[in-house]
Order: sequence, then C-alpha cells, then structure tokens
Amino acid sequence: MKLADLANALKLELHGDAAHEVSRMAPIASATANELSFVVSAQYTEQLVASRAGAVIVPPALAKHVSGNYLVSDNPYASYARASWLLTPETEPPAGIATTACIDPTATISTSASVGEHCVVGAHAMVGDSVVVGAHCILGENVSVGAHTRLFSGVTVYDDCRIGEYGRIQSGAVIGAEGFGFAYDKGWLPIHQTGRVVIGNKVHIGANTTIDRGAIEDTSIADGVLLDNQIQIAHNVRIGENTAIAGCVGIAGSTRIGANCQIGGACNIVGHLEIVDNVVLNATSYVTQSIKKPGRYGSGMPLQTNGEWKRSFVILSKLNELLKRVRRLEKHNE
Amino acid sequence: MKLADLANALKLELHGDAAHEVSRMAPIASATANELSFVVSAQYTEQLVASRAGAVIVPPALAKHVSGNYLVSDNPYASYARASWLLTPETEPPAGIATTACIDPTATISTSASVGEHCVVGAHAMVGDSVVVGAHCILGENVSVGAHTRLFSGVTVYDDCRIGEYGRIQSGAVIGAEGFGFAYDKGWLPIHQTGRVVIGNKVHIGANTTIDRGAIEDTSIADGVLLDNQIQIAHNVRIGENTAIAGCVGIAGSTRIGANCQIGGACNIVGHLEIVDNVVLNATSYVTQSIKKPGRYGSGMPLQTNGEWKRSFVILSKLNELLKRVRRLEKHNE
Amino acid sequence: MKLADLANALKLELHGDAAHEVSRMAPIASATANELSFVVSAQYTEQLVASRAGAVIVPPALAKHVSGNYLVSDNPYASYARASWLLTPETEPPAGIATTACIDPTATISTSASVGEHCVVGAHAMVGDSVVVGAHCILGENVSVGAHTRLFSGVTVYDDCRIGEYGRIQSGAVIGAEGFGFAYDKGWLPIHQTGRVVIGNKVHIGANTTIDRGAIEDTSIADGVLLDNQIQIAHNVRIGENTAIAGCVGIAGSTRIGANCQIGGACNIVGHLEIVDNVVLNATSYVTQSIKKPGRYGSGMPLQTNGEWKRSFVILSKLNELLKRVRRLEKHNE
Repeated sequence: MKLADLANALKLELHGDAAHEVSRMAPIASATANELSFVVSAQYTEQLVASRAGAVIVPPALAKHVSGNYLVSDNPYASYARASWLLTPETEPPAGIATTACIDPTATISTSASVGEHCVVGAHAMVGDSVVVGAHCILGENVSVGAHTRLFSGVTVYDDCRIGEYGRIQSGAVIGAEGFGFAYDKGWLPIHQTGRVVIGNKVHIGANTTIDRGAIEDTSIADGVLLDNQIQIAHNVRIGENTAIAGCVGIAGSTRIGANCQIGGACNIVGHLEIVDNVVLNATSYVTQSIKKPGRYGSGMPLQTNGEWKRSFVILSKLNELLKRVRRLEKHNE
Repeated sequence: MKLADLANALKLELHGDAAHEVSRMAPIASATANELSFVVSAQYTEQLVASRAGAVIVPPALAKHVSGNYLVSDNPYASYARASWLLTPETEPPAGIATTACIDPTATISTSASVGEHCVVGAHAMVGDSVVVGAHCILGENVSVGAHTRLFSGVTVYDDCRIGEYGRIQSGAVIGAEGFGFAYDKGWLPIHQTGRVVIGNKVHIGANTTIDRGAIEDTSIADGVLLDNQIQIAHNVRIGENTAIAGCVGIAGSTRIGANCQIGGACNIVGHLEIVDNVVLNATSYVTQSIKKPGRYGSGMPLQTNGEWKRSFVILSKLNELLKRVRRLEKHNE
Repeated sequence: MKLADLANALKLELHGDAAHEVSRMAPIASATANELSFVVSAQYTEQLVASRAGAVIVPPALAKHVSGNYLVSDNPYASYARASWLLTPETEPPAGIATTACIDPTATISTSASVGEHCVVGAHAMVGDSVVVGAHCILGENVSVGAHTRLFSGVTVYDDCRIGEYGRIQSGAVIGAEGFGFAYDKGWLPIHQTGRVVIGNKVHIGANTTIDRGAIEDTSIADGVLLDNQIQIAHNVRIGENTAIAGCVGIAGSTRIGANCQIGGACNIVGHLEIVDNVVLNATSYVTQSIKKPGRYGSGMPLQTNGEWKRSFVILSKLNELLKRVRRLEKHNE
C-alpha cells in the first residue's frame, strides 16, 4: 500500500515519499523498509531515531526525531489499529451454508452470511447480513445474530439469546448456559433459568468466556463491551457500554457494572453489587461491596520472596493480635 | 396455569382466586397479573405490598401484607424453584439419534434417549433412558450416562468416565481429560493417567468446567454436587455429597472435599488437603492447609482506592519490619 | 508384564521373582499381587512394609524394608512415569481420515496420521506422521501439527498457528484466538491480530486452556512447556523451555517467562513483565513487577475463620492508619 493511500485512508498528514509502499505493521525496533510502525510517546524516542521502518506513525511532538517517512497522528495507537486492518485485511469466507451444516428449515439465514462446516442452527434462528458463523458453531432456537458479526469456530449460543451487530466472538465461548441457581430443601433444587442473554452491538467476547442466561430477567451486555478470554459472567449480570474486562474475571449473579469501566485480569466481583460508571479495577481486585464513586481501585497482595512471604503469612494470620499490641502500647503511653 | 392447580402441585395453601391463571415467574417489583412472584423475607415487605403480581409465594409471617392472591410456603425460594419448572417446562428434543451423529455399533443407546447432531459416541458406551445428549457432544469409549441426565451441546466425556442419573452438564464442560502429572528426569515425563472420572446422580456441571481423570485411582464427584462454570478439578480429587462450588474455583490434585460444603467463587485449594463436611469458604479463599473443623472461612483482601491500595501494598511488603517495630516499642516499654 | 521385562525396559535392578507378572500401577496402600507400586521417600516406609503389591519401585535407601519383589531406582517417580505407559499403553486410533471430516484439498495429511469424526482442516494445513487428531478438532488454514502429537477431541487451532512434535493437547483448548488489543478513540477500535502462536515440541496443553495469537509478532511456547487446564495466555507472551504452569493461571500480554519455571495454580501475572529462568511461584501469586532473580516467591493470603477474617479485613482496610499509630508511638518514645 502506498503511503499516500494510507495517509488518505487514515486521514493523517504524510511527510516523505508518498509513493513508498508498506505491506504490514511491525514493532519500531524491528520494522524494515516495507513495514509500517508507530510510536505513542517519548519513551520510545531512541528506538524511533534508530528505526529502519518504511514509515512511522508519530504524535506531533515526536515528528522532529524521524529521519524517514512519517505520518502525524494525535492518537498513534488508534491510527495503528486502523492501519492494521488496511494493510492486512481479514480474509472472509465466501457467503453460503456449508453442506455439512444442519439448519432448521424455519431458521432465516441471510444470503450474504457464511455458515461453516458442521454448524447447527435451531428453529426460528436468524443470522443477519454478512455474518460469519465459523465451523462447529451451535445456535439454539430463536437465537439471533446481527449483521456483520463474526463467530469464530466452536461458539455455542443457547436458545433465545440475542447477539447484536458488528460483534466478534472467539472459539469456545458459551452464551446462555443455565445460571447457577438452586434452592435448598433437603437437597438442592435447580431453578429453571428462563431469562436470556442479550448482547448489544460491537461486542467482543473472548475464547472460552461464559455468559449465563438470566434466571427470570435477562443477562445483558451493552454496546461496545469488550470481554477477554475465560471470563465468567453469571446470571442476571448487566454490563454497561464500552466497559472492557480482561481475562479470567468472575462476576457473580445479579451484579450491575456501569459504562466505561476497565476491569483488570482475574478480578472477582461478588453478586448483587452495583458498580458505577468509569470505575477502573486493578488486576486481581476482590470486590465485596458496591462501588459508588468512579475511580481506580485495587486489592491485590504484593509478591515477596518465599521466606518473606512465609513470615508475612504468619503475621497476617494474627493481624488482630498485632493491632491489640499497638493498642496496648498506646494505652501504656497515655 | 390455574392457581388451584399450582397450589396442588406445590402442596401449598392458596388464599385468593383459585381460578386465576399465571403463566410464568417474575420479580416482585415488576410482576403483572398473569405472573407469579415470591418473597423470602421481610426485607421485601414494601415491594410485596406494592406488587401487582397475579399471585405471590410468601412465608407465613408475611401473609398479612398481601392484598391479592398468595400461596403460603415455609420455604418460598424452594417453592419458586419448583414453580419455575411447572410454569415454564423444559422443551425436550424428541427421542432418537440424529442422522449426522456417529455412533459406534457396540454402543448402547436407550430408545428413549435423544442424541443430537454431529455427536460422536464411542465403543461400548451406554446412554440411559430419557437421556438428552445435545449436538456436538463426544462420549468416549466405555462412557456411561445415567437415565434422565441432560448434556447440553458440546460436552466432551473422555473414555471410561461415568455420569450418574438426573444430572445436567452445560456446554463446553470437559470430563476426564488427562490429569497434570509429570515426573522430572532431565526433562518432564508425563504419567499415563489411567483413572476415571466417576460422577454421581443429580450432579450439575457448569459451562467450560473441567474435571480431570485420576492418575491411578478415580476422580470422584458424589451425588448432588453442584459445580458452576469454569471450575477446574484436578486428578484424584474427591468431592462429597451436595457440596456446591461457585464459578472459577480451582482445586488441585488429590484434595478431598467433604459433603455439604459451599465454596465461593474463585477460591483456590491446593493439592493433597482434606476439607471436612459443612465448610463454607468465602469467595477468593486460598486454602493451603486441611480444614478440620466445619464453619465459615475466608482470606480475601479488602478493596481500596488505588491511592490507599498502593500504600497498603508497600506496608504489606514490609510487614515483618512493622512487626519488628512493634516489638521494639514493647521492649522499650518493659 | 513379567518383572524381568519391566526391569529391562526401565533399566532398573530387580530383586525377587523375575517371572512374576504385574498388569498395572496401584497406590502403595491398596496394591495387590498383580499390581506394581512405588515409594518415593521414607515418609511411606510403614505403608511399604505393609504393602501387598506384586512389586514396588523403591529408592536404594528403602530397599531393606521390602519383603517382596522390588525394583531399585534413583528416581522412583520417574520410573513410575515410564512404567505407567509400559503397563497400560495408550490405545491409538487407526491411521486414516474419518469420512465425516472436512479436509481442504490443499491440506497435507500424513498417511500415518489419524483424523477423527467431524474434524475440519483448512487450506494448506499440514498434519505430520503419526499425529492423532481427535473428533471435532478444527485446524485453520496453514496450521501445522508436528509428528507424534496428539490432539484430543474438540481442540481448535486458528489459522497459521504451528504446533511441534510429541505434544499433547486436551479437549477444549483454543490456540490462536485473537488477542485482546484495542485502541480508544471515541469508542474501542480493535487491532487486527496478525501474529501467530508458535508451539515447540513436547508441549502439553490442558483442557480449555487458551493461548492467543500475537498482535504483530508471535506468541511463543518453547519446547517441553507444560500447561494445565484453564490457563489463559495473552498475545505476545513468550514462555521458556520446560516451564510448568498449573491450572487457572492468567498471563497478560507481552510478558516473557523464562525456562524451567514452575508457576502454581491461579497465579496472575500482569503484562509487559520479564520473569527470569528458574522462578517458582506459589499458587495464587500476583506478579506486578518483573522478577530478576531465580527463586521461590509467593503472595497469597492466609485462610482464617470468618470471624478472624472479618477483623483482618477491617485492619487491612486501614493498614496505613496502623502504620501511622506505630510511627506516633515511636516518636513518643524518642
């Protein structure tokens, strides 16, 4: 791709040889003449100066350090995101339904959709325009998948669940399994989980992530939500727009998470809480109470050498005793 | 469903219009005339008074607050569990084997069982009466699935594993994968995992949960055990009757967990421990020693604002120093 | 198998009846006359003395305690690992491609490989000699699987990923899903993940483990790496030779882990770190900074009774205040 065309498509100012061609992205340290790179901050100035990249996307302040071709962007990382699709476009499978797929006759599949080998699509399901359903996906009865969404292979969507437009769902994700709801009466009694999972537009769902259907009401994932791999979202949870959640997070039943939150990896959020908009949780945060103020929070423990850790472990087991000793000292000093 | 029939089926006392009909469950705050709701405690009295539900299941003490129809139950949550299946019964697929399923000729499939599209059933496997095997399930050689159990789509059961009656296993669950057992001799040597997974009756297993086969002996899950999503159960683990485990829990090899335990989400239990009956673990508990007394335990850290957390992080890294300072003060005061 | 043949195959010294036959492994406490057992340390002397095993593998120092047949090994656990495959060899499916598998005509499948029912193999994929691909596996375009590797059923490998020789990958593993990379510009912009996952030889990957493809460069798993179940490895991560990682661990993007590390269950390692060779992490360790020295580390919290834990929880929420009180006491004592 010629730099002139790239600058045009990205709406960026180009400095240098407009006819120069680049064919893909590369890190600033290793990029060569036919590769495009980017730099987000002055932290990388040294690498930028030494770079042999065919062109570099830089913020205005760093332009002076580039000797070769460059594109100026107020948000180089966003420009990189856009360029990544322009330089290496996705190969989409052709429209049509694989011969080994089992499609219920009452299902509606857009003629521009692609349905892969061995898929199973249930009664009254709807697959929208330009949707790609990878091999081995299972769409239950009444499931709907909005236009331009891509399900990679091996995604399972239980009956009645709804997926919006422009989504991307990775392999092994399970949408709509039965929530973990039981009453106890001389033994566990399962509660029929009759709610759905309703997923908005532009939602990304990672590999092996699970989102349970609601007990009575729906589990709901708003537009623009990003879910990494191996996340567990329990029944009745609601997640607000553009909230991004990193891998291995668990969210227990009926908790509501606001919009524009960022939740670090392996956080655990207990059930029936409310977390307001714009909350950031450090990785491994343990949330036992509702969060009413936006801001950043954390609860993870520091790593220590095993010797130090063992001592800390003993002290932490007797923290109340330590507090009492401090109180005794304070009394003594009164 | 008429309230009279519902009261009959639930064995509850009905007050109000026996001919009134309800068609499904709804939360007390939003239930309308053709919906049934329930209230478990006085905490919801206000909502109960204001409710427009067609009928409400209430504990005896709250009956006086209901102006409309109600059913009196000593355990309203259990009555709700039972009603959830009566009002919205599960639709079961018809008996029979899908034409795309690959069934070994030596396998035995009950004529009342349903086996879904693209299933693979190995040699000498047995599928019991009224079992539902969803699409894309894989049952290895010698696997047995007891009567009335339902496997949702995409469940994998390795060779020789046994699943009891009346179970429910959600999509993506993997039963019987090889345990993580290796010796070291100038490189890792895998140990052939020749045990099985043996699962009792009325066991629920969540989506993407994994239960490894035993190394020599079996991994064993007793009757009535409830496992939520994304749980990892390592080889040789034994879990006692009616124990319920929430999502994202990890249990390392050879640990034995008693009966009637409740294990919160994201707990981690190391290997070779024994946990007695009736232990309750708060979410994110880290268990490094056997638990010999029934009761409730926890180890999770409190959430703090990022500023507080950073300070705590530093203090926790030097906890031993803090203890020494307290000791020095105590000495000084002697 | 005759003990003479077993001793020969294991290269161990046999004491006792060379013609005695054993047919499988069993634990020392329950082994019977036709079973082989092993003991690794003096901790098990009592059970060794009482054992009725047909033969026992023992370290030299314990030989004197055995009254029956025994094999002497400097590493009884490694000898057990080898014996486990000799006594109960794996049954491998016959070579050939199942009739229900969908193989792209440009894919190359070794005639000695076995490809199971309903597998999907993409264009230009290569499946090496003696490879076993279980039922329902999906190999994307350009995927290669090295000789003697076994994929159990339901493994998904995205386009372009490479798997070495002599590997074992359990069901539900997802190799090469899109990394979790997004820029923000009035909404999330996904970054096209164009790197691969490159996996070395003798790598074991557990059930439902996920390894994301790199953003630009590759995610890389070196020879001999062991990954348990439900591990999440983010894009661009590199893991060095023979490192073993227990279940439920999460490793965030671009982190590099050295060789011969051992990472306990449910650890969480944040992104962009470097961990040197020979690091051991206790279970549930939270790693927020690079680890530059080999050794053992930990950060998990001690379990307490719920009452103690609640008190600790309050104290931990006010740790900074506790420190200030100690400081005040110190000042007072100056």
